[in-house]
Amino acid sequence: MIMKCKQLRNKYFIRLVKGEKIIENLLKFLDDNKIKAGFFNGLGAVSGAILGHYDLETKRYSEKTFEGQREIVSFHGNISRLDGKPYIHAHMCLGDKEMALVGGHCKEAMVAATCEIVLIDLDIDVERYPDKEIGLNLLDF
Amino acid sequence: MIMKCKQLRNKYFIRLVKGEKIIENLLKFLDDNKIKAGFFNGLGAVSGAILGHYDLETKRYSEKTFEGQREIVSFHGNISRLDGKPYIHAHMCLGDKEMALVGGHCKEAMVAATCEIVLIDLDIDVERYPDKEIGLNLLDF
Amino acid sequence: MIMKCKQLRNKYFIRLVKGEKIIENLLKFLDDNKIKAGFFNGLGAVSGAILGHYDLETKRYSEKTFEGQREIVSFHGNISRLDGKPYIHAHMCLGDKEMALVGGHCKEAMVAATCEIVLIDLDIDVERYPDKEIGLNLLDF
Repeated sequence: MIMKCKQLRNKYFIRLVKGEKIIENLLKFLDDNKIKAGFFNGLGAVSGAILGHYDLETKRYSEKTFEGQREIVSFHGNISRLDGKPYIHAHMCLGDKEMALVGGHCKEAMVAATCEIVLIDLDIDVERYPDKEIGLNLLDF
Repeated sequence: MIMKCKQLRNKYFIRLVKGEKIIENLLKFLDDNKIKAGFFNGLGAVSGAILGHYDLETKRYSEKTFEGQREIVSFHGNISRLDGKPYIHAHMCLGDKEMALVGGHCKEAMVAATCEIVLIDLDIDVERYPDKEIGLNLLDF
Repeated sequence: MIMKCKQLRNKYFIRLVKGEKIIENLLKFLDDNKIKAGFFNGLGAVSGAILGHYDLETKRYSEKTFEGQREIVSFHGNISRLDGKPYIHAHMCLGDKEMALVGGHCKEAMVAATCEIVLIDLDIDVERYPDKEIGLNLLDF
């Protein structure tokens, strides 16, 4: 991992580089920095991404893989814990060279030119639990 | 209302549940917690939403109602006051199972699987006033 | 510039008005307020915008100019410095009256009805450098 960051108290300015997997590396970053809860916003570009859409009736995500360079038009997510491990829930909007967009749940995405994320550590305990009715890991409030 | 949250000082991690109206419940939440100004970002999914687009010439919103499950790809808004009551200005981007998107001014949206919002209370007085030239309630700075 | 703001410590609630260029005025605002690093989220509407998509192979942005009133469905950016001057990296998603969307790198955009931005000053030194392999000004961490 060659992802790097600058930190001011509970705020992290993060840079990922070409070829890095965004979700995988963010999870490692959370673990390394003992971040238990928070949120982030990012932008940059991807060379590919797996996006999902959840169906409450089938309780399954349908997924689509998008190949090719796209701008990360929006990338917002929150940070919590499931079974003691960092958990990321993030959605992403991607734009091609016609400025046409696709978007959904972000399962994974690969950095193209760059990916720049500002992450705020909330320093509270936020756990998730598997909700049987919904079929997802929901926030345990 | 079964919307719940965890709070750290001026930061709220909020969870709405299936069937709740997002804007209506957020407004109640702001009132209950005496939040006068701030901003939020959210994600999750909706079973339906009313989105709008404002026309400066007619000074009217055109609205469209979208039925069916869509991911909340982005949901950003700010909090202020109008006539002493909480006021939400929020825009939303929604994705279907083809990852195709629609978006605009969020008049209202109904939670499907879940809706998770991080809200920051700015603890300042931010009022709006009805601007006659623009035809909208603008920030009174 | 008739852009105005309310400030609470490191947090700025900004309002731009009809006819103002968003990026140009935000850059002036950063300079005037000596903001060296940070991030922002905004919403509102534009009367036009120039959006871009970066191609790693040609090392060039392809740009498209969009005329007409569109809602700012999302507008996220970060703040850093290049050669001692404020630098904005921002992406924008825009919606028309059919709630159809376009989006990409935001080169410039002109305010229609209003533009409301919440900006957080991170008060750290974040510089950029021209990266020859990528062809962009990347974060110098």
